Amino acid sequence: MALIILAHPNIKNSVANKTVIEELQKNNTDIEVRDIYELYPDFKIDPKAEQQTLLKHKTIVFQYPFYWYNMPAILKHWFDVVYEYQFAFGSKGDKLEGKNFLSSFTIGGAKKEYKTFGEHNFRIHEFCKNLEQTAYKSKMTYIDPIYFYETSLTAGLSSDDITVKAKNHARKLLAILNDLA
Amino acid sequence: MALIILAHPNIKNSVANKTVIEELQKNNTDIEVRDIYELYPDFKIDPKAEQQTLLKHKTIVFQYPFYWYNMPAILKHWFDVVYEYQFAFGSKGDKLEGKNFLSSFTIGGAKKEYKTFGEHNFRIHEFCKNLEQTAYKSKMTYIDPIYFYETSLTAGLSSDDITVKAKNHARKLLAILNDLA
Repeated sequence: MALIILAHPNIKNSVANKTVIEELQKNNTDIEVRDIYELYPDFKIDPKAEQQTLLKHKTIVFQYPFYWYNMPAILKHWFDVVYEYQFAFGSKGDKLEGKNFLSSFTIGGAKKEYKTFGEHNFRIHEFCKNLEQTAYKSKMTYIDPIYFYETSLTAGLSSDDITVKAKNHARKLLAILNDLA
Repeated sequence: MALIILAHPNIKNSVANKTVIEELQKNNTDIEVRDIYELYPDFKIDPKAEQQTLLKHKTIVFQYPFYWYNMPAILKHWFDVVYEYQFAFGSKGDKLEGKNFLSSFTIGGAKKEYKTFGEHNFRIHEFCKNLEQTAYKSKMTYIDPIYFYETSLTAGLSSDDITVKAKNHARKLLAILNDLA
């Protein structure tokens, strides 16, 4: 049904991302999760193994924490080495054509700070053009990202609060995956 | 005078980025270049060493090839591990305050494709919000990025053509560094 590319440097100690993944797996057995940080702790990503896995799925979900207004480095490295010429782009680079591209991420800070005059100055979608154009360049169908806020324990919420939000997010993601299936 | 954080996975075989660096070093002896891919080929960046180097400079230049509408993974990793809480942000995180933040990058494709209805759909500055907000969050002074196009040998230009463009770019960068000094 769907491939989840999970990019988190410490998933075991994560609350938000770990809960999302657990909820997905609990409620849908037709999901393949690849924890790329666990698979490639030294960043030596195997492009062929990743490409073979991509070919098996119609929808690719990128699940990660939003770091410095962008994806974590391991996921950027994944794109840099897996989205090769003549695989993802180029005259014969049609291997991802028509597949769905969906980013799903967690944001440490509060929603009210992601706007003009807020601490982070910009709306989330303003930070996502690189995702959108990466999807277009690889002929994939860009689905608007889904995300939720205040997942940092230092932001004042309890672990239980974050777990509730993560479960809601997982339900939303499952609904989207059902629509796309 | 300035610190150049160079992020290129294969600088020896580079034309554009290598020429920019060579021209900078030829024309200004007060520049420190850190080739972070050479220093950390296994991505095991030393945050303290990087932070100590940052403290010595007023202007930080990020020199890299534009990959997938974003910075190379090694540079994203550099931000993820070097821009720590209470160094770059947080109640005591004022160590970068007032320093200049300048991105300087090379773009494989042609300028005419970076616009609505062009192959890449967006203007370059639309892909740079994460850079801009990273500067603001770390209390740095954001200088508008400088860049040049068609640095890919597959785009039809000769190595000599690209070298000329890279030298022009280096002159532009040196002029900005002089203004900021």
